[in-house]
Amino acid sequence: MDSKRPDRRRFLKGGAALAGSLTLGAVKPALGQTPESGQFIKGTDEMIAYGDRSRFVTSKRMPHPPGGRESPDGFGLVFHVAAPLQDSVGMITPSSLHFVGTTRGSYIPDIDPTEHRLMIHGMVDRPLTFTMEDLKRLPSVTRPHFIECAGNRSRPQHKSVQESHGMTSCAEWTGVLLSVLLKEAGVKDSAPWIVAEGAEEVKGASSIPMAKAMDDCMVAYGMNGEALRPQQGFPVRLLVPGFEGIFHSKYLRRIKAVDRYYMTYSDYGHLNREPERAALGYQIGPKSVITFPSGGQQLPGKGFYQISGLAWSGGGAVSKVEVSTDGGRRWMDAEIKGTAYRMAHTRFGLTWNWDGKETELLSRCTDELGQVQPARAQVAEFFNARAGSGFSVPGQDNSIQPWRIASDGAVHNAIT
Amino acid sequence: MDSKRPDRRRFLKGGAALAGSLTLGAVKPALGQTPESGQFIKGTDEMIAYGDRSRFVTSKRMPHPPGGRESPDGFGLVFHVAAPLQDSVGMITPSSLHFVGTTRGSYIPDIDPTEHRLMIHGMVDRPLTFTMEDLKRLPSVTRPHFIECAGNRSRPQHKSVQESHGMTSCAEWTGVLLSVLLKEAGVKDSAPWIVAEGAEEVKGASSIPMAKAMDDCMVAYGMNGEALRPQQGFPVRLLVPGFEGIFHSKYLRRIKAVDRYYMTYSDYGHLNREPERAALGYQIGPKSVITFPSGGQQLPGKGFYQISGLAWSGGGAVSKVEVSTDGGRRWMDAEIKGTAYRMAHTRFGLTWNWDGKETELLSRCTDELGQVQPARAQVAEFFNARAGSGFSVPGQDNSIQPWRIASDGAVHNAIT
Repeated sequence: MDSKRPDRRRFLKGGAALAGSLTLGAVKPALGQTPESGQFIKGTDEMIAYGDRSRFVTSKRMPHPPGGRESPDGFGLVFHVAAPLQDSVGMITPSSLHFVGTTRGSYIPDIDPTEHRLMIHGMVDRPLTFTMEDLKRLPSVTRPHFIECAGNRSRPQHKSVQESHGMTSCAEWTGVLLSVLLKEAGVKDSAPWIVAEGAEEVKGASSIPMAKAMDDCMVAYGMNGEALRPQQGFPVRLLVPGFEGIFHSKYLRRIKAVDRYYMTYSDYGHLNREPERAALGYQIGPKSVITFPSGGQQLPGKGFYQISGLAWSGGGAVSKVEVSTDGGRRWMDAEIKGTAYRMAHTRFGLTWNWDGKETELLSRCTDELGQVQPARAQVAEFFNARAGSGFSVPGQDNSIQPWRIASDGAVHNAIT
Repeated sequence: MDSKRPDRRRFLKGGAALAGSLTLGAVKPALGQTPESGQFIKGTDEMIAYGDRSRFVTSKRMPHPPGGRESPDGFGLVFHVAAPLQDSVGMITPSSLHFVGTTRGSYIPDIDPTEHRLMIHGMVDRPLTFTMEDLKRLPSVTRPHFIECAGNRSRPQHKSVQESHGMTSCAEWTGVLLSVLLKEAGVKDSAPWIVAEGAEEVKGASSIPMAKAMDDCMVAYGMNGEALRPQQGFPVRLLVPGFEGIFHSKYLRRIKAVDRYYMTYSDYGHLNREPERAALGYQIGPKSVITFPSGGQQLPGKGFYQISGLAWSGGGAVSKVEVSTDGGRRWMDAEIKGTAYRMAHTRFGLTWNWDGKETELLSRCTDELGQVQPARAQVAEFFNARAGSGFSVPGQDNSIQPWRIASDGAVHNAIT
């Protein structure tokens, strides 16, 4: 199509920018009936009860960091597992692919929900112990929220987006607002903090400001329409929207209203030891990353592609995502797909006509507070000095991720 | 608490209607540390790659209708499977629990996605054949939509909500708008219908009005953040938001723009044979059903409960849900949980203080068009005459579902 004489029909039809322009060089003209596979799967009782993936779909999680690392308490490899973001679509991470962080080796609690109890105590008028049935009788909320491990992007040179950003995931969570439980127990106005403890001995006892506890924290028993998965804290976990992952205590069994910040295992090594600074450093982001094309993927040739990625912020909803296809010289507004929820992954996309020349793809997000994701140069010295330590720092590395597209279509991390 | 002298503190704290009122008679005071399970699961390579449910979570799908029925083409039992709505939370149906409808016995196509092709042809300027890779290079959308089988609620006397309403489910779908593909192929303005065909020989070749095809139909390859499941049409299916399930052709391989309504297998028995009436009868709802408490469940005793349910409409977004806890004398507005999306399940809830006396629970939904879910009496004669025929009718039975709560807490379908 002559770019100076746009096809009138294209405008008459409206809508898609690509309409009628035969944008996909590779698309074949129709040649009659499409082939039949002829292959069928015979239904089984197991398939009726609870279905599974196609044998052709093999996307999987991987240990994080690659190769894993030893648990500090001698329980073997730390069971950190990263989500395959390179294959992700939409906002939801499937529960089977949601990242996992645990510091107790490879062992996770195996809890009978009928035996589990959640205790609310400390500076309250009426200490209470809830069964799971009790919790389900209270008013519920359903909200999408991301959880991201502070150890995400521990090395800026990670090769794939699964390695670099796979320790974040997003699910539709259902549960009771923590404020309902605290009010039910009659929390005292003089309690400025809570400590939340789960049934992992060396993890998850975090101090959380009361203002956050009474705002949007959720005691969640539902995930993507069913019960929590064991790796995500079955039967119940705490959601602390926007705060780094370790606050979202799994296997939640105890919440204590307390008079001060408690230094716990969770604070070891990666949180600031000064309570005031720590309390300000919990929120994640704003962050974004292009998931397609991303490191390790291969473009078959020049032509139109849909750049796709995820943006999120601990500060609230994502309000804008920009994408550059020329290494940062020019930025274009990406399309936000669907609703941008507070503290949730937000899918963005941009149609890109690749001319086959080497370039760099970048994304940059802005949240509803006006926070803008920083350029690498703004944070490089700080984070490079800490890279590879195994622990990140409060606020972590939220700088822009550049992917280099080579002229042969190979995609690599531009940070080497 | 003296109801005439409300606790001032309750209002100071704001928010939850239950705050500080010790509403759950069964909640125990705290007794010190909660018990540890002591049980742990050892992580395995399989758990790292793709996680699974807790062994304590056994919610499962069941054949629909109970016992199943023979396939018309001799392939054995029809592989219709209903979702366990009684256990559902939130808006999303987990992909493993999404209902399944297929008329080709228990056999479903087993398709290699690299071999699959989608052809757009008929009354178009440029017939095209798309590979899955081609489709993924086009601009995508992500939207939650329900799909509901016209055979849902084939018998008003079904005992559980899984039996009565389990042939509907809702997922976050990702794909390309069909309008993009039709424009790409240069669909002719003179084509008033399309026919969509999947790789199930005796199902899924449905005629769809062009206005619908160009509006919000989606060619979907993603479901709840990963590839479609085989039972939901892997690698690609058609979404026809709000239309009855059989239009949402699975294993989609062909879309033909045509000059008239085609009578196909899908029309046999349950669609109107007059094209004009058929075209007006495709949309589902408005419908709603209480999923907790529902038939077959048991309330442990009087006190506070969270009534929970789902509402949906083929006419658009749900705008209001009302619940009656006294058999329809008084109606209260239920809370809509989260966003009410167009043609998506919408979760509603209402806090209910059961006095322990026999009663009936009902829900009634209104959609954005102002359509109101009808009372049973309005449709009973029509549907009772057809009940048990194995096929429903266009528009189907969307009347209000009553659940009877006996004084011992047992819950039964009030339609006997």
